Amino acid sequence: MTISPDGIVSIKHLTSMALLSNDEVIGLIKRAQAFKHQQIKPVFKRQFFVANLFFENSTRTHKSFEVAEKKLGLEVIEFDAASSSVNKGETLYDTVLTMSAIGVDVCVIRHPDEHYYQELVDSRTIQSAIVNGGDGSGQHPSQSLLDLLTIYEAFGTFQGLKIMIAGDITHSRVAKSNMQMLKRLGAELYFTGPESWYSKSFDVYGRYVALDEMIEQVDVLMLLRVQHERHDSGASFSKETYHAQYGLTHERYKWMKDTAIIMHPAPVNRGVEISSDLVEAPRSRITAQMTNGMFMRMAILEAILNGKA
Amino acid sequence: MTISPDGIVSIKHLTSMALLSNDEVIGLIKRAQAFKHQQIKPVFKRQFFVANLFFENSTRTHKSFEVAEKKLGLEVIEFDAASSSVNKGETLYDTVLTMSAIGVDVCVIRHPDEHYYQELVDSRTIQSAIVNGGDGSGQHPSQSLLDLLTIYEAFGTFQGLKIMIAGDITHSRVAKSNMQMLKRLGAELYFTGPESWYSKSFDVYGRYVALDEMIEQVDVLMLLRVQHERHDSGASFSKETYHAQYGLTHERYKWMKDTAIIMHPAPVNRGVEISSDLVEAPRSRITAQMTNGMFMRMAILEAILNGKA
Amino acid sequence: MTISPDGIVSIKHLTSMALLSNDEVIGLIKRAQAFKHQQIKPVFKRQFFVANLFFENSTRTHKSFEVAEKKLGLEVIEFDAASSSVNKGETLYDTVLTMSAIGVDVCVIRHPDEHYYQELVDSRTIQSAIVNGGDGSGQHPSQSLLDLLTIYEAFGTFQGLKIMIAGDITHSRVAKSNMQMLKRLGAELYFTGPESWYSKSFDVYGRYVALDEMIEQVDVLMLLRVQHERHDSGASFSKETYHAQYGLTHERYKWMKDTAIIMHPAPVNRGVEISSDLVEAPRSRITAQMTNGMFMRMAILEAILNGKA
Repeated sequence: MTISPDGIVSIKHLTSMALLSNDEVIGLIKRAQAFKHQQIKPVFKRQFFVANLFFENSTRTHKSFEVAEKKLGLEVIEFDAASSSVNKGETLYDTVLTMSAIGVDVCVIRHPDEHYYQELVDSRTIQSAIVNGGDGSGQHPSQSLLDLLTIYEAFGTFQGLKIMIAGDITHSRVAKSNMQMLKRLGAELYFTGPESWYSKSFDVYGRYVALDEMIEQVDVLMLLRVQHERHDSGASFSKETYHAQYGLTHERYKWMKDTAIIMHPAPVNRGVEISSDLVEAPRSRITAQMTNGMFMRMAILEAILNGKA
Repeated sequence: MTISPDGIVSIKHLTSMALLSNDEVIGLIKRAQAFKHQQIKPVFKRQFFVANLFFENSTRTHKSFEVAEKKLGLEVIEFDAASSSVNKGETLYDTVLTMSAIGVDVCVIRHPDEHYYQELVDSRTIQSAIVNGGDGSGQHPSQSLLDLLTIYEAFGTFQGLKIMIAGDITHSRVAKSNMQMLKRLGAELYFTGPESWYSKSFDVYGRYVALDEMIEQVDVLMLLRVQHERHDSGASFSKETYHAQYGLTHERYKWMKDTAIIMHPAPVNRGVEISSDLVEAPRSRITAQMTNGMFMRMAILEAILNGKA
Repeated sequence: MTISPDGIVSIKHLTSMALLSNDEVIGLIKRAQAFKHQQIKPVFKRQFFVANLFFENSTRTHKSFEVAEKKLGLEVIEFDAASSSVNKGETLYDTVLTMSAIGVDVCVIRHPDEHYYQELVDSRTIQSAIVNGGDGSGQHPSQSLLDLLTIYEAFGTFQGLKIMIAGDITHSRVAKSNMQMLKRLGAELYFTGPESWYSKSFDVYGRYVALDEMIEQVDVLMLLRVQHERHDSGASFSKETYHAQYGLTHERYKWMKDTAIIMHPAPVNRGVEISSDLVEAPRSRITAQMTNGMFMRMAILEAILNGKA
């Protein structure tokens, strides 16, 4: 990964936030803002092909990548695992090798296996750039970057912001990407939610607190989705109990600072993490996050293609 | 909805035929005919995105919308519910909110819930225009409009035409849209088919008759598909019985007027509603309906985009 | 099918290799090579629509057709049987009739029924050209043509080449297309693999031999995939047994001529037909076959469109 003197970021792959420098993150944020507020259509030196390979359910990530690709004028290949040779036992490696061989320049991939991307970026035969759209309970860098854009848009800085991450932290690839990055960018982090969904390993990034202890002070409240599909056993909470103890109720909304913002990666479990009619409330940035996601993905793809012959 | 002095129709959403005036219907028909017979490619003021969200099976409606979108030069986003966050419990409202947030200008939707579109067009957050591709047993306005185009193409008018709608009327969203519109446009309506699939509420639009009583006099015979998938219990008729009593047999075909036309929204149950080798017979407009459907959908989408900033 | 004095091939449909002359095959190979090595973008006289209808799982064939279509600047309609009217009982004929009616110029089809294409090319109503992407255990002409391109690329001729086809020959549509064509083009054919997967009817094309008898002499070793999904009963071999008896082991690789090439239509069962780390070995053309497949499909589609008004 490199960044030119005029701030143009060039990336070979995007697999993990840990591989991005602070300057590169700020460079991508500024480029996404430029896409959002100016009429920019980059001109590439040739026709580029992008394939979207989603092996897990997705609406936002998948479709905002697709809109971003088409806004950039790229050729888009959709891959549907359910009607592919994956049903004949083909591995992810061989599927991506195929994409590379038939001329696909970039593969955007979501896959349930953590670090699935390692053997792909290590291959000498695979030529496609890899953009990680989520690896199991691992990373989700494009979501992290859109979250950072949304915070930067509201405050113009990360330095000294009080940011609270609430909920199912252990299962959230977003939370893990975000806590590392936000701390590195100078924010103060707080964690809240059920103790069983918290891990001591997060202590290096911030402090585990009670929601009501900090709700009046935070600048950013990042709610996490209760991921029913990643929990083995039956839920240990009813929706009502979770909402009352750990969710954003109307009462807690009133306690928040006027300048505070509410974020959620969505899909929202309405009435669980947040009261349904607060999803579109003035302090909520949940819809803005989706919009920012599309512009951030334009910036990511452009940075990848800047690194391509 | 508005219509300019030179006949250019502008529509905000297309949810129900009841909201279209006769002039707007004729305006759309004439525009579809222009697309069919002239080489017209409208130039839009910016890149527009259309998403096709089909929550029920479809070949004709879905694929003819898609061809129409691409003929108009629009960017098309396909949405596959089976691999989306719908599987994480996301509602239709939140799915469409996502589409709107990531920059989708028009959502073409088929969904099993009647009036699903109401909360979407009422939302202050959702900016996408809604085109109803079928709501449960409710409306199917683009099918209605293509049927009207097909009749207008054959006769140049609706006034005084004898039109018979035959079959599973209670389950047909097409029949309900059509009967209201055709009566308003001046046609004489007749209904036939099994009594259990007829409702007294249709009496205001036309007369329930025996098929063989009117077959020699009708100008248009609109056959409806037996919708096995919407019937709870086992069929009360065998295919052979249905065909003999209510279907278009070779014998009945011979009794029809030379100028009469046969229509069917398709997919056809060959040998049930119509004898298999009559599907492509000279009086049949079943293939023409599909072709007209694509051109009518071009006219609909253009009218929607005429209403967009 | 015709071929102009300057070698431009024009095809109405592509259903079976048997309908292509040697000159047409060589014409398509040369055109695919031109697409591969020169920057050629053909200009067509109008916007053309291609629909991909895959009723069986596919990654390579499906996606390389799609890339080829987009490289040629064609409009692509993807058809997903699982969410189509096929679920309402619609036949292949009526699905293709719909595609034709809504303006689709070419249908690329994979379907489990052998000779599915016959009623489509015989129809007077269907106007779409048919490109066979595989019919049951029948033909797979685009795979055959890419195999021929790969051999021609390596040797510049077919005359006198020793080519061995190894494995599940009876279930392989590729093998059957290839043996006819390769013999006609002057190659010497050998067959090997389990006797129960060999048929006496292949004797007219070549000789059934033991793998180890010929491995040192062959110019081309064409491995076939063990098609678990087409075998009724449980496999009669373990993976290890198959690999040891009929597969390309490291030892056999060493016995091969330096100039010999290894081919496999893929997806590969790694460790069965071929040792996993030989898939990307120097003599392997397995990745090259995929790349060639995309360029050959450009040549095929262009030849089809050359035959269209």
